[in-house]
Amino acid sequence: MISLVLLGTGNLAKHLFNAFLGIEEIKVLQLIGRNEDQLNYFKNRVVTGTDFTKIVDADIYIIAVSDDAIASVATFLKEKKGLVVHTSGNVPLQSLGDQNKKGVLYPLQTFSEGRKINFKEMPICVEAEDKKNLDLLKKLAGLISLEVHEITGDQRKSLHLAAVFVNNFTNFLFTIGHDICTEHNLPFSLLTPLIKETVNKLETLPPIASQTGPAKRNDLKTMESHLDQLKDKNYQDIYSLFSKLIGEKYGQKL
Amino acid sequence: MISLVLLGTGNLAKHLFNAFLGIEEIKVLQLIGRNEDQLNYFKNRVVTGTDFTKIVDADIYIIAVSDDAIASVATFLKEKKGLVVHTSGNVPLQSLGDQNKKGVLYPLQTFSEGRKINFKEMPICVEAEDKKNLDLLKKLAGLISLEVHEITGDQRKSLHLAAVFVNNFTNFLFTIGHDICTEHNLPFSLLTPLIKETVNKLETLPPIASQTGPAKRNDLKTMESHLDQLKDKNYQDIYSLFSKLIGEKYGQKL
Repeated sequence: MISLVLLGTGNLAKHLFNAFLGIEEIKVLQLIGRNEDQLNYFKNRVVTGTDFTKIVDADIYIIAVSDDAIASVATFLKEKKGLVVHTSGNVPLQSLGDQNKKGVLYPLQTFSEGRKINFKEMPICVEAEDKKNLDLLKKLAGLISLEVHEITGDQRKSLHLAAVFVNNFTNFLFTIGHDICTEHNLPFSLLTPLIKETVNKLETLPPIASQTGPAKRNDLKTMESHLDQLKDKNYQDIYSLFSKLIGEKYGQKL
Repeated sequence: MISLVLLGTGNLAKHLFNAFLGIEEIKVLQLIGRNEDQLNYFKNRVVTGTDFTKIVDADIYIIAVSDDAIASVATFLKEKKGLVVHTSGNVPLQSLGDQNKKGVLYPLQTFSEGRKINFKEMPICVEAEDKKNLDLLKKLAGLISLEVHEITGDQRKSLHLAAVFVNNFTNFLFTIGHDICTEHNLPFSLLTPLIKETVNKLETLPPIASQTGPAKRNDLKTMESHLDQLKDKNYQDIYSLFSKLIGEKYGQKL
């Protein structure tokens, strides 16, 4: 049995809480957060509270709050004997303070309100200062996911950066595609089979081998016609930059 | 029964040929292409040839060649009575010449050698000059796909442009993610559940509502740390441009 206290009430706290709740070997003792409204989500399912000075003893304390608040939440835990972990991709382990036993449990996923995530397939990256605590974290993570990976702090920062490219920026490209469709009275759903195949290809080919399109084949006529069609200067900038970089990567001089 | 002649031997010609082959109501009479090696793929399954002056009569002639070659292939068909269509996203109907009955059959998908495409779910966009030919094209497309859409030439150009954003540029972002992983000894597969969820979210939310990340929440500290990590100047440029545009779109001044 691993006993836990969860600190935070955001999307990640909610998703983690739901994942832990179904596991017999995990006991969530308490959920603490400043936001009283958000605590309603958890009430009746676990002991909740807003007072960070009243945290009970547990094996692991999971701080699932915004990056900026991690260090200050950790100060409430400096007398505790359990392992204190945060869940951020970009905050160093050391931010958890000198006195705590420290670790990181970084779920590599994008969490939205109301969307169910398949935790079993979701990578959880773990980090700790010694083998004993690393094993404890691996055990906890292994109870909710089949994809537990031990990584370094530097690797975690790199993964977080890579996630910004493949999630945040990709989603913005989808927004541009959506805008173009809307402007021309086309349903965005026309593009979803193409988007799915773009992703499915990753199963058989590295992305560098799947690149297609006018920039790769140096099709200047098509690129010029595309730039002419784009009225939004910002979208033109994106188009030009990608075309230049794809051209360079595949050996074209543009 | 619709009789066809296919002109071209590339990926799209192969995928279309395989899709047509399984349909009782379609008869592919002939496949013509310049590239003798590529014709081997089709031999024993259909009459093949390299001579464009020996094209037999058919209901529809499908020109599946590169954009630049469409007009010249069409000149071989100017005496024919059947409907002449091309399959390009970006070439006007008029490029098929004055004398032909003209149409477009544009499958909105990325075709790679050896990858099977689910034609039934793939949008096929059709265009023709009159109702009779439009109906014929719709009938043909409807035999291989459940997603047949009648669109204008302008809409087709816009779709092609949107496809470049959501496929070509998205794939390049995946390449950047792959590069970052490789540089830090991380398997790219760690990112695939995140990538899949980025796409799956589109089923319930428009992309503008799913945007997350440091640029959206104006988290300058994280963005600065990410830019510091990127050694490749080109990747820094992509990072900065997206961050600026996402910030502007969501009302942050950067």
